[in-house]
Amino acid sequence: RDRARAQQAASPIRNRKVPAMQSAILSCLCGGAMAFSPSAQAPATRQLHSRAASAMPAVSRPAGQPTVQLKELYRRSTQQWKMLSEDKPLKVGVVGVTGAVGQEIIDVLGNRKFPVSELKLFASARSAGKDMETPFGALTIEEFTLEAARDCDVVFLAVSGDFALEYAEKIAAGDGPLVIDNSSAFRYDDSVPLVVPEINAEAARKSKKKLIANPNCTTAIALMALAPLHAEFGVKKCIISTYQAASGAGAPGMNELKEGAKAMMTGGEATNEVFAHPLPFNVIPHIDKFLDDMYTKEERKVTWETRKIMDLPDLPVSCTCVRIPTLRAHAEAITIETEKPIDMEKAFAAIKAAPGVTLTDDPSSNLYPMPLTATKKYDVEVGRVRKNDVFGDNGLDLFVCGDQLLRGARSEEHTSELQSPLQS
Amino acid sequence: RDRARAQQAASPIRNRKVPAMQSAILSCLCGGAMAFSPSAQAPATRQLHSRAASAMPAVSRPAGQPTVQLKELYRRSTQQWKMLSEDKPLKVGVVGVTGAVGQEIIDVLGNRKFPVSELKLFASARSAGKDMETPFGALTIEEFTLEAARDCDVVFLAVSGDFALEYAEKIAAGDGPLVIDNSSAFRYDDSVPLVVPEINAEAARKSKKKLIANPNCTTAIALMALAPLHAEFGVKKCIISTYQAASGAGAPGMNELKEGAKAMMTGGEATNEVFAHPLPFNVIPHIDKFLDDMYTKEERKVTWETRKIMDLPDLPVSCTCVRIPTLRAHAEAITIETEKPIDMEKAFAAIKAAPGVTLTDDPSSNLYPMPLTATKKYDVEVGRVRKNDVFGDNGLDLFVCGDQLLRGARSEEHTSELQSPLQS
Repeated sequence: RDRARAQQAASPIRNRKVPAMQSAILSCLCGGAMAFSPSAQAPATRQLHSRAASAMPAVSRPAGQPTVQLKELYRRSTQQWKMLSEDKPLKVGVVGVTGAVGQEIIDVLGNRKFPVSELKLFASARSAGKDMETPFGALTIEEFTLEAARDCDVVFLAVSGDFALEYAEKIAAGDGPLVIDNSSAFRYDDSVPLVVPEINAEAARKSKKKLIANPNCTTAIALMALAPLHAEFGVKKCIISTYQAASGAGAPGMNELKEGAKAMMTGGEATNEVFAHPLPFNVIPHIDKFLDDMYTKEERKVTWETRKIMDLPDLPVSCTCVRIPTLRAHAEAITIETEKPIDMEKAFAAIKAAPGVTLTDDPSSNLYPMPLTATKKYDVEVGRVRKNDVFGDNGLDLFVCGDQLLRGARSEEHTSELQSPLQS
Repeated sequence: RDRARAQQAASPIRNRKVPAMQSAILSCLCGGAMAFSPSAQAPATRQLHSRAASAMPAVSRPAGQPTVQLKELYRRSTQQWKMLSEDKPLKVGVVGVTGAVGQEIIDVLGNRKFPVSELKLFASARSAGKDMETPFGALTIEEFTLEAARDCDVVFLAVSGDFALEYAEKIAAGDGPLVIDNSSAFRYDDSVPLVVPEINAEAARKSKKKLIANPNCTTAIALMALAPLHAEFGVKKCIISTYQAASGAGAPGMNELKEGAKAMMTGGEATNEVFAHPLPFNVIPHIDKFLDDMYTKEERKVTWETRKIMDLPDLPVSCTCVRIPTLRAHAEAITIETEKPIDMEKAFAAIKAAPGVTLTDDPSSNLYPMPLTATKKYDVEVGRVRKNDVFGDNGLDLFVCGDQLLRGARSEEHTSELQSPLQS
């Protein structure tokens, strides 16, 4: 890890601003096939989603989503699209493998038993030639080249937005691979689908581009709960306060928190380079830079991305993003107003049935979403579900927690909390 | 501190459930005289408030509240009410001095230069006879007796709700002293004023009882920002998510967090007795017991007490109370809907002019409310003030942080997070 960090610090691809971008892969590996319906468009996109169905372990599915359904969907998809079959694994490229997110993507490919025929590890020239342990054996890191990336079936970009802007479309062009980008470079581009597979896989299947943008982790986690509730009751207003972990700023953020806490617990003082202030035993209501409207960009990402993913361009979303001294897994307190009055039984049923979600709501057993239990889980925990005062029968309060290293993307701006604010 | 904790564990007054109740005194010592207007009622209550004016250091006042005004108010009050004069300090009793809150009250009496003629330290028989260092010299702890307490001018109760229920009214009866209770015993009693002095000192002055209840710390901190905004725009709806420190569960809570963090930072594991789960690097959306409506009692206290203090019996307040791994000072993300459209200049001016509040809102200098800066400050920090999406022109988002050991009371229920839930 130290070696990897040193490399990353020196790497033109994984520079200081992008130490550990968030894994998009999980969003695309899990659940995407749930809403699966064969269509004639975008075969490369469909490929991945059909593949995703087979890669999904049955154990992580909620009760209402039998594995047999996934198998059926997968069978139908492979019959209809001849481009791949059950015994044709994919050649997968990961760009930015020396960062925490690149490594997370590789781990997930292994853990999720994604059918990989060949794994290509791309990084900058400085890291090229070095060996790296992977679930697919020890592999040698290669210098990124457009040609080598285009030779893959699927390419994950775990690098900066600038890099993505330069290369993503070139990699995917023509008969190139499907590209899944973790940065915010294409998230607000109308021609690029912004996808949480359990929610809007259809957007990827309908897209003419072989490029998928992965949303901000805070948004992705919130939407896992909001999408099924929206389907049931219609979400009209949304107020979110976040409890975001240090890992949102990558491995350097986690290390700064750990080292600071250790120093403070042994008579020393915490210092800060990654965060705008020392984080141990503190709370920092400042993630990403400040915009002209006094919201932070992180807060506005939640607004913009929620609207795009849920296809609700005018949904009012107020968000306060707060960094707190946890290591991994973001929590969020959410208050919604709904079109239809809330029926609590239906609300619980909708959450329970949602793919990628675990209803974690049993006060009598002290069960509710927490980083302690959500960390390293693929599912997002949803709990503390209750009618609220403010919106009466049409309101619901809830609390969610999800491992943002396994959900949504970490954008490169997360570590710019020290950049001069009030610039957008 | 260890000795104090051992005593407190064995004490019938300060038993295991009430290790460190929150200091009410600060609320009553600071700011109360700001809205001062002499009246003919409740002389004992007025006494304290007029005294408070003189005890308030000029340095902690916001710019718009000159000290000269306080002096004038104090002068007028002492002229009008002959019960005390500038050179007649008060005999003050503190019940529960071996707990963290009792000690905090004594410290504040010293720091705020409260004119104390004599300080009486009351605890259980087990602690009686022991010496304690105070800003007024080393004093001997006495066993609590009704007679000794009634002999004071002012008595602070830093003990359990059960104790308060048994003794508060007996102490204050007839020509007894003014009693300020930190527990939740009388907060919802219509005949007892629930007071944040900067906001509703008038309620104490109008009361026929010489008993003042001190609100829950979360409520008290939120209202420091909400009251001035309400005066300017009228608050219609209120949504609060809290970031509450371990000190809300007293010294044992703080110790559990510190020891757990130390263990985790040196290869061990965190354990939990005070909190329902290990708190270091975790987030626990569970403070106080669960009620039938699935809210926690802590969350409902915010609703009930906000309504009572602001005299808005129907105000809709949705609150999510969350324990996070900070040591001291609660933070809160607040979203409000207002009657009148928001004028940002007026909003800033109202916050700036409010007594007991520091406007902490300069993104260009990374200035916003944080436990790091709010800890051990008497003023509540208010910042991140911005119009919100959800309520349009009639909505405001803000973030507040205040040292809850110096603001509002800690109720005895705070350490009952391990009690069986779903009982009210």
